[in-house]
Amino acid sequence: MNPTTKQQLMGVSTATLCTALFKRGLAHQFIQDVRPLNPGLPNMVGEAYTLRYMPAREDLNTIEVFKNREHPQRKAVEECPPGAVFVIDSRKDARAASAGGILVARLMKRGAAGIVTDGGFRDSPDIARLPFPVYHQRPAAPTNLTVHQAIDINVPIGCGDAPVFPGDVVVGDAEGVVVIPAHLADEVAAEAVEMTVFEDFVQEKVMEGRSILGLYPPTDEQSRVDFAAWRQAAGR
Amino acid sequence: MNPTTKQQLMGVSTATLCTALFKRGLAHQFIQDVRPLNPGLPNMVGEAYTLRYMPAREDLNTIEVFKNREHPQRKAVEECPPGAVFVIDSRKDARAASAGGILVARLMKRGAAGIVTDGGFRDSPDIARLPFPVYHQRPAAPTNLTVHQAIDINVPIGCGDAPVFPGDVVVGDAEGVVVIPAHLADEVAAEAVEMTVFEDFVQEKVMEGRSILGLYPPTDEQSRVDFAAWRQAAGR
Amino acid sequence: MNPTTKQQLMGVSTATLCTALFKRGLAHQFIQDVRPLNPGLPNMVGEAYTLRYMPAREDLNTIEVFKNREHPQRKAVEECPPGAVFVIDSRKDARAASAGGILVARLMKRGAAGIVTDGGFRDSPDIARLPFPVYHQRPAAPTNLTVHQAIDINVPIGCGDAPVFPGDVVVGDAEGVVVIPAHLADEVAAEAVEMTVFEDFVQEKVMEGRSILGLYPPTDEQSRVDFAAWRQAAGR
Amino acid sequence: MNPTTKQQLMGVSTATLCTALFKRGLAHQFIQDVRPLNPGLPNMVGEAYTLRYMPAREDLNTIEVFKNREHPQRKAVEECPPGAVFVIDSRKDARAASAGGILVARLMKRGAAGIVTDGGFRDSPDIARLPFPVYHQRPAAPTNLTVHQAIDINVPIGCGDAPVFPGDVVVGDAEGVVVIPAHLADEVAAEAVEMTVFEDFVQEKVMEGRSILGLYPPTDEQSRVDFAAWRQAAGR
Amino acid sequence: MNPTTKQQLMGVSTATLCTALFKRGLAHQFIQDVRPLNPGLPNMVGEAYTLRYMPAREDLNTIEVFKNREHPQRKAVEECPPGAVFVIDSRKDARAASAGGILVARLMKRGAAGIVTDGGFRDSPDIARLPFPVYHQRPAAPTNLTVHQAIDINVPIGCGDAPVFPGDVVVGDAEGVVVIPAHLADEVAAEAVEMTVFEDFVQEKVMEGRSILGLYPPTDEQSRVDFAAWRQAAGR
Amino acid sequence: MNPTTKQQLMGVSTATLCTALFKRGLAHQFIQDVRPLNPGLPNMVGEAYTLRYMPAREDLNTIEVFKNREHPQRKAVEECPPGAVFVIDSRKDARAASAGGILVARLMKRGAAGIVTDGGFRDSPDIARLPFPVYHQRPAAPTNLTVHQAIDINVPIGCGDAPVFPGDVVVGDAEGVVVIPAHLADEVAAEAVEMTVFEDFVQEKVMEGRSILGLYPPTDEQSRVDFAAWRQAAGR
Repeated sequence: MNPTTKQQLMGVSTATLCTALFKRGLAHQFIQDVRPLNPGLPNMVGEAYTLRYMPAREDLNTIEVFKNREHPQRKAVEECPPGAVFVIDSRKDARAASAGGILVARLMKRGAAGIVTDGGFRDSPDIARLPFPVYHQRPAAPTNLTVHQAIDINVPIGCGDAPVFPGDVVVGDAEGVVVIPAHLADEVAAEAVEMTVFEDFVQEKVMEGRSILGLYPPTDEQSRVDFAAWRQAAGR
Repeated sequence: MNPTTKQQLMGVSTATLCTALFKRGLAHQFIQDVRPLNPGLPNMVGEAYTLRYMPAREDLNTIEVFKNREHPQRKAVEECPPGAVFVIDSRKDARAASAGGILVARLMKRGAAGIVTDGGFRDSPDIARLPFPVYHQRPAAPTNLTVHQAIDINVPIGCGDAPVFPGDVVVGDAEGVVVIPAHLADEVAAEAVEMTVFEDFVQEKVMEGRSILGLYPPTDEQSRVDFAAWRQAAGR
Repeated sequence: MNPTTKQQLMGVSTATLCTALFKRGLAHQFIQDVRPLNPGLPNMVGEAYTLRYMPAREDLNTIEVFKNREHPQRKAVEECPPGAVFVIDSRKDARAASAGGILVARLMKRGAAGIVTDGGFRDSPDIARLPFPVYHQRPAAPTNLTVHQAIDINVPIGCGDAPVFPGDVVVGDAEGVVVIPAHLADEVAAEAVEMTVFEDFVQEKVMEGRSILGLYPPTDEQSRVDFAAWRQAAGR
Repeated sequence: MNPTTKQQLMGVSTATLCTALFKRGLAHQFIQDVRPLNPGLPNMVGEAYTLRYMPAREDLNTIEVFKNREHPQRKAVEECPPGAVFVIDSRKDARAASAGGILVARLMKRGAAGIVTDGGFRDSPDIARLPFPVYHQRPAAPTNLTVHQAIDINVPIGCGDAPVFPGDVVVGDAEGVVVIPAHLADEVAAEAVEMTVFEDFVQEKVMEGRSILGLYPPTDEQSRVDFAAWRQAAGR
Repeated sequence: MNPTTKQQLMGVSTATLCTALFKRGLAHQFIQDVRPLNPGLPNMVGEAYTLRYMPAREDLNTIEVFKNREHPQRKAVEECPPGAVFVIDSRKDARAASAGGILVARLMKRGAAGIVTDGGFRDSPDIARLPFPVYHQRPAAPTNLTVHQAIDINVPIGCGDAPVFPGDVVVGDAEGVVVIPAHLADEVAAEAVEMTVFEDFVQEKVMEGRSILGLYPPTDEQSRVDFAAWRQAAGR
Repeated sequence: MNPTTKQQLMGVSTATLCTALFKRGLAHQFIQDVRPLNPGLPNMVGEAYTLRYMPAREDLNTIEVFKNREHPQRKAVEECPPGAVFVIDSRKDARAASAGGILVARLMKRGAAGIVTDGGFRDSPDIARLPFPVYHQRPAAPTNLTVHQAIDINVPIGCGDAPVFPGDVVVGDAEGVVVIPAHLADEVAAEAVEMTVFEDFVQEKVMEGRSILGLYPPTDEQSRVDFAAWRQAAGR
C-alpha cells in the first residue's frame, strides 16, 4: 500500500469509506457484526492476510494437532507479513474461539496491524489490554478445535458477509471494519479525506445551529462559498 | 405531554414503567434489542415523532437523492418538533445506518429529546460523545441508502417489535426504551413514581438483610407499616 | 466443593477451563452468549443452584402471583445456599427479565456467589453497581411474567446451550461462564492451575518476541527447559 | 377428557381454537414452527404427556445409555397413557432427532393419539407412512444423544414457545398444533363447534359472492337472519 | 398493465425475471422465504395492492375490532381491484396469521390475481384447495390480532425484504414471487420471453448431452447458429 | 469407492449412518437444514466434489462473467467426475441461487450422482422433475451473482455446518444428507447394513405389539434369540 494512502486512511472513518465505496457500486464491504475489544486505539490500517476455517471434524481436531508446526492456524500467525491485517473467516460462528491471547500477542509482536474474526476470541479480557486493534463478534472461551478447523491460508474469504481478498486494504475504527478492494485503495482514501474535511465543516456548522437543508449535501451556493472560506481558514 | 408527567418520567426506570403497563394488559411496549450509545445521561422523555424505512430499491437510492430537500429522512430531521423523540422503524436491520452523526447532531440542536432506531447508527463513536440520548441495535457504517429507503413521516410504526404511534410517550434510560400509549402517560407516570418510592424502600431493606418474602410484594402487614414510617421519614 | 478447588478456580480463566474440559471430551460447557454486567470483579465460583422457566401462560402470570410466598422464583431466591451460583434456564429468551435488581440484591446479601441467566435482567444499571457477579444476554426491562413462568427449582437445566446439573461447579470471569461437572471439579481445577502457569510463561516469552512454534505447545526441548527455569525463578 | 369434548375437537380447526383461546386472553397456545409429517390424517386430539430434554453432556450420552431400561426417553414411551399426545420439549433444536421411527411406531401401537416435538424426528420418511399424527420442525437424522438428554417425564414444559402442562388438551390438524389448558377444554371445544358452523356458513356465502362486510362478523341483522335459516336447513 | 405484458409474464419464470432485473441493477426484488400453498397453478401476475401491518397493541386489537367496517384489513380486502395481487407486509413474523381462509376466498371471488404475505396464513389446508395463488412463509393458526395490526392500505411496503410499491407488477410461480417496478414491466417481460426461448433451447441441448461451455452463454458462434435454426424450427 | 460399499449405502438410511458415525465420535456429519427437491428417488451415493462460494463483490459479479469459460462455477460443473456428488458451500445463504436448472441438468447428464447446497437452487420446479437427487435449503430465484462468487474447486468446505473433504462419501435419502469420511466409508457402510437388518426386525416386532424394553437395544437374551431366528428365516 502506498504510504500516503495508509496515512490518509488513518485519519478517516469507516462510515466515510463505506460511502465512498457505495458511490462506486460496492455496498457490502463493511464486515457485519464485529466490534473492537479495545475501542480507544487509532485506526487499524493494513493489507488483508487471511485464514479460512471450516467446520471441525472431531478426529482431526484433538488437542494434539497443535504439536504440528504446519498447523495452518499457527503457521499463518508466524507468516503473516508485518503491517498486514489478519482476517479470519469463522463462518460467523462464535461458539468457539478463532484464536486466543497468546496468538494475538504474537501477531502484535510480529508487527501485524490488527486482527479481525467474524467469530470470537478467547482470553478477551487480556486481549482488551493489548495496544493492538482486535475485532470480533463476542467473547468465546472454548478452544477453536471445538467448532473450527483452520484449512487455508491467504485465500479469498468471507468475513461478516463481506468479501475479502488477500491484499485488500482493511480499515478499522471504533465503529467497525471496512474492506477496500486493493485497486481502489488510493482513490478511495483520497476521496475519503476530502469528504472528511467537508463533513467536519458541516458538523461544525450544525453544532452552530445551521439547518442541513442546502448544506448537506451543499445544494445551496452559499454552502459551497462558506466551505471554501472555512477550509482556507482551517488550512485543510 | 403534561409537564408534571414529563418530570415524573425523568425519575423512574423503564423497568418500573414496563410493570405499570403490564398491569394494564400491555406487554409489548419495550423496544427490543436497542441500547444507549451514551448510557450516562439522564432519562430521555418525549413524544414520539416517527420515520418509516422500507427496503431500498437501488434505482431510487443513489447518492444523488439527498440533493432533494424533500427527501423524507432529511425533511423529518428538520421538522421533528422540539422535545420529541425521533423513532425510526428500520425493520430491525442494522446492516446499514438509519442515520449518521450529522443528522443526529442536527436533531439535538433542534431540541429533540432523543433518537431511537431498531437498526444502527453510523459515526457511532462521534454520536457517543454528544450529550444526547441515542439508542440503536449496533453500529452500522454503511449509508442508509444501502438497505433503507425513508418513505413515511410520522405514521404508526413498529420499532424493535413494539408498536409506536406518533404522540406516544417514549422513555429511555440506561436499560433501554419503553413506549407509553399517549392516553396512559399521566396515570402510568404517577403510578411509576409511587412504585419507585416503594421499590427504593424495599431495596434499602434488602440491602440491610431483610427477606423479600412478605416484603416484596408487602403481604406482611409489618412491611406496610414499615414502609409508611420510612416514607414519612424520607419525605417522599 | 473442596476449598482448595475453589481457591484454584478463583485464579484461572474460563478459556483455560474450557480447554481442560475439551481434553476430557466435554465441548459444550461454556454458556453461550452471556456477558457480565460488572466485568471488573474477581472470578465467580460456586456450585450451581438452578431455576427453570417455561413459557408464561397469561392466566397463571398476573401481577398477583408474587403474593404467593411459594412462587418458585421468590422461593428459590430465599432458599439458594450461600456460596452457590444461581443459574436460570430462560430458554435464551431475553424479551422479558429473568429477575430484577431487588432479587439480585437479596441473593447477594444471602451470600450467593453470583447469578447467571441466558435471558436478561431488568434494573440492569442498578445491578451493574452491585459488587456481585451477574451474567446475562442483554438488558430486559419487562417483568418476567411477560414471557417466563418459574416452574422448577434445582433440577437439571440448559443455560445458553450448556447442560447444568445442580451441584456442578460454575466459574465466571470477564469473558463468560463455564460449567464444570461436579465430579471433575477438583482435577480440572488443578490442571487449569498448571496450564495457567505455563500460559503465563508463554505469554511472557511471546511478549519478549519469541515465536510460538516449538513453544506453544512446547514441542522444543528448549521450551521445556526454559519453562522449568522460569517456574523455579517465579516460585510458582 | 370428556368424550363429547374429544369428539367436538375432532371436527374443528386449530385456527378456530386459537381464536376461542384468544378471546379468553390466551395468545401463545399455538406451537410455533411445527408441521405434520403426514397431513392427510384426521385431527389429533389427546391429553398432553410430556418429555423434557436438556442439552446433552457427552459423558452421559454415549450409545450405551439406551441399555438402561430406566432411560427417560424409553421409559416415557412405554408409560405414556393410551389416548395421550406425547409432547417433547426439544428447546426448538432440530440439529438432532427427538426420536426415531421405532419409538414412534411403539407409541402408535400403545395407543397414543400422536406425538409432537419442537425439534425433529429421524426416520421421517418411514414415519410419514404411519397412520399416526406426528409433528416436528424438520427431519433430523442424528441420534438424540448428539444434542439432547431426556431428563424429566410429564412435567410442565415449553414446546415451540407454547406452555404445555401435563393433561392439557392438545389438538393437531394439517395446519399445526394448539394446546388448550385442561380446565378450558370443554367450553373451548363447544364454542369452537359453534364458531365452525358459522364460519362454514360464511365461507359458503363468500363463495357465492357475498361481501364480508356485515357478514363476518355478522354486524348486519340480515346476516344473522340468513345464518339462522341456513343453520336450520343444514341441520347443524 | 399492458395485456401483452401480462400474457408474457404468464409464460416466464421468476428465476428468469430475477436475472432480467439483475441486469438492470436490481438485486433485491425476490420476496425472500415465501412459498406457494398450491404450487400446481399457472403463474400469478398482477399489480401490487398493499396492506401494511405494525406490531399489535393489545388494547387496540380485541376481537371486537372486526365489527368496524373500516378496519383496514377488511376494508382492503373489499377494495382491492380485480386483477391485483394483494401483498402484505407482516414484518416477516409468522407467529400469527396475516389473514385466513374466508378473506382469501373473498379476494379470489372479487377477482384478485393472488395474495402474498411474508408472515403466514391460517386455515392453510382450506386455502391450499382454492384455485388461487397464495404465498406465505408457513401456516399460522393464531388470529392476526395476536401480533399484527393492519394500519395502512396501498402504501409502499417491504415484503420478505423486497421493496413493493403499489402498482409494481408482481409475478409468482412454483418457486416464489418477484416484484417488477412498474416502469420496467414491459421491457422486462419482453426480455424474459426472449431469455426463456434461449434457455429452452439450451435445456434441450443439455439434455441431449451438450456441454454448457460456449453454449450458456453462447460464446461459441456455433451455438448462436444452432439457436437460430432451432428457433426457426420451433416457430418461437 | 468400493462398489460393495456403494451398493450397501444404497440400502441404508442417513439416520442409521449418523448413528454409526456417532459411535465413532463423529457427531456433526449430517448436513443441517437441506431437503430433497424430489424425495421419491433411490439413495444418492457418491464421493464429494466441492465448490466453494464466497460473498459476491459487485464489480466481479456482473452478468458478463459467465462468458469466461474458466468461471469456477461452470468449470466445476464440466469437470465434476461421473459418480461424484457435487457439494456446494453457500455459507447457508439462500437469498440467491447456488445454481439453476441448466447446470443441474448438465451435471446429471455428465453422470454425477447428485448435488447438494446449503443455499438454494433456482428453477426448482424444473429441477424437481429431473430423475436426479438434488438437495437445498429452499428455492432461490435470483442468480448466484447476487450474493455468491464461486472461488474454489474441490477444496475442503463446510456445508450446512458439516465438514466436507473432497472424496468423502456423501449419502442422501428422503430425510437429508450425511457425509462419511473417506477412510471410514467401508466399515460404516458394512455396520449400517447390519444395523438396518436389526432395526427392520425391531420395527416388525414393534408393529406386532412388542415393547421396546429389552428389545431395542436387545438387552434381553430372548431378543437376541428371536433376532437370530428372524434373520435366518428372512435370509438376511
